[in-house]
Amino acid sequence: MGGGSWATALAKLLLRNCDSILWYMRRDDRIEDFKRLGHNSAYLTDVEFDVNRIQFSSDINYVCTQADSLLLVMPSPYFKTHINRISVDISDKTVISAVKGIVPGDNEIVTDYMAERFGVNPERMLVIGGPCHAEEVALDRPSFLTVGCHDVALADEFGECLRSPSTRTITSSDVEGIEYAAVLKNVYSIAAGIVHGMKGGDNFLAMLVSNAVKEMERFVDEVCPRPRCICDSVYLGDLLVTAYSRFSRNHNFGSIIGKGYSVSTARMEMEQTAEGYYGTKCIKEINKKYCIEMPILDAVYDILYRHANAERAMRALGKWFV
Amino acid sequence: MGGGSWATALAKLLLRNCDSILWYMRRDDRIEDFKRLGHNSAYLTDVEFDVNRIQFSSDINYVCTQADSLLLVMPSPYFKTHINRISVDISDKTVISAVKGIVPGDNEIVTDYMAERFGVNPERMLVIGGPCHAEEVALDRPSFLTVGCHDVALADEFGECLRSPSTRTITSSDVEGIEYAAVLKNVYSIAAGIVHGMKGGDNFLAMLVSNAVKEMERFVDEVCPRPRCICDSVYLGDLLVTAYSRFSRNHNFGSIIGKGYSVSTARMEMEQTAEGYYGTKCIKEINKKYCIEMPILDAVYDILYRHANAERAMRALGKWFV
Repeated sequence: MGGGSWATALAKLLLRNCDSILWYMRRDDRIEDFKRLGHNSAYLTDVEFDVNRIQFSSDINYVCTQADSLLLVMPSPYFKTHINRISVDISDKTVISAVKGIVPGDNEIVTDYMAERFGVNPERMLVIGGPCHAEEVALDRPSFLTVGCHDVALADEFGECLRSPSTRTITSSDVEGIEYAAVLKNVYSIAAGIVHGMKGGDNFLAMLVSNAVKEMERFVDEVCPRPRCICDSVYLGDLLVTAYSRFSRNHNFGSIIGKGYSVSTARMEMEQTAEGYYGTKCIKEINKKYCIEMPILDAVYDILYRHANAERAMRALGKWFV
Repeated sequence: MGGGSWATALAKLLLRNCDSILWYMRRDDRIEDFKRLGHNSAYLTDVEFDVNRIQFSSDINYVCTQADSLLLVMPSPYFKTHINRISVDISDKTVISAVKGIVPGDNEIVTDYMAERFGVNPERMLVIGGPCHAEEVALDRPSFLTVGCHDVALADEFGECLRSPSTRTITSSDVEGIEYAAVLKNVYSIAAGIVHGMKGGDNFLAMLVSNAVKEMERFVDEVCPRPRCICDSVYLGDLLVTAYSRFSRNHNFGSIIGKGYSVSTARMEMEQTAEGYYGTKCIKEINKKYCIEMPILDAVYDILYRHANAERAMRALGKWFV
């Protein structure tokens, strides 16, 4: 469910291992283009599909009725608009979230939202994380996905559906930690982009990222305590891919701001607002309850929502780095 | 003591806070050039010095006699050649190592070597680590150094001598961990360079680096056990600067190999052999005793010393990543 690059990459992986899929896309014109061209006209246009093995529909309720498993891949800002069109019972479905974001307004991770709103069984919910550019998955470059589920056997089973000669799947039972980490890494990627844009240098960037990992660890250990190693690829690796890559939307968004442009200019420059823009606000709200020490999050929030000077705010972080 | 870029950057920092320094350089012609030009003719040539505040000497014993504190900044491959020229008693000196390498042949970290060979008191030995390009320190970009000493008060005192408006110092008591981590990061930087050279992609690189941090943690926790957080900037941050920067010699060395050139060609291409080349062998030797699981080190060793195919060896690591 979703029509972006990440949805397209995951669909390509699934079709290696499944005979056919249902594919919900919002826009009928995009579906028609896809069928005619044999590829997504808007994203990963190089990736060819056998459209006979795809049943497209813009009717989310039809798809939800037909499918046993729902793979959610909408960008988090539009997630609620889509999902709240569902009027059929999906409480017995397996739901896999590849959303990598928090439900704005509700400040909830997707699995919590799906359990509360639709009564989906938390034991039947999975998340997909890991250091992954959709572009690289599509290009068959070596890629690694982490599938999280409280029921590790189910994670492993779904992981099998995503495997390919170039894609390995790793399983984890830390559903909530993976979801929060995926949001936080977008926040830190904006920070990394700002440092890049202001030409802060490699030393400063390395300090930022190593301190960001520690901040991430403080947050997830407090909000969803359990034993975990924050250096596992689904946390640290995913952060590195986003913070050090120029393909990352969040990084680019930060970079524009770091060059001295206003936040509103940066938003206008981007075709689609970077998810970390919303993620920053959501985590800031959630942290009102926990009061975890999060100076990097606070700095990004002040820059994005309180007109703080980006360069000064980032430099001020330097006093705090360890 | 030393004439390279790191020595030059540290000298510049010291001269902000000290009236004068003694500076040992091996070559008299370089000393003459330095005095005449007001800068190091070979490294960081943009950085101007007031040469009246520097007493140069190519006589290591003269410098050792005159100075209270010895700051060692020779590249590790040449370290022994220099240091074994010392024939005066230096057992009562404060010795600061910025060598970032293991003494080849002896497979010892510098502080252990100095204690055994010269009877220097381990409580009077310090190490300088941290994510730092000499170039950025010299350019007054925000930089962070970690000063390690068993006696944290002494670390703090020496840290004061290195501070500048753009350079912050952090103190630590983990002398041995900092030294080993500084060697390991060079090994992993070669690995990252290989991935870069073979166009392995951002996903693979992020997996490599996050797994490298875990490998580093296993090694230092076993070889010098004590509580430490591997995400501190002196460990993780330093690794990131080296693994993600194209200014790093080790990264460039790996990159040439990753492009398909032989190790001997890569060594000839570089003006100075990357320290990680020797570090890989030293750690491999040390690990014979400990048998720590180190697949990345093993892969780099096989590539550098056993003619393993670089691309195949790196791809094989993918099966093991978590």
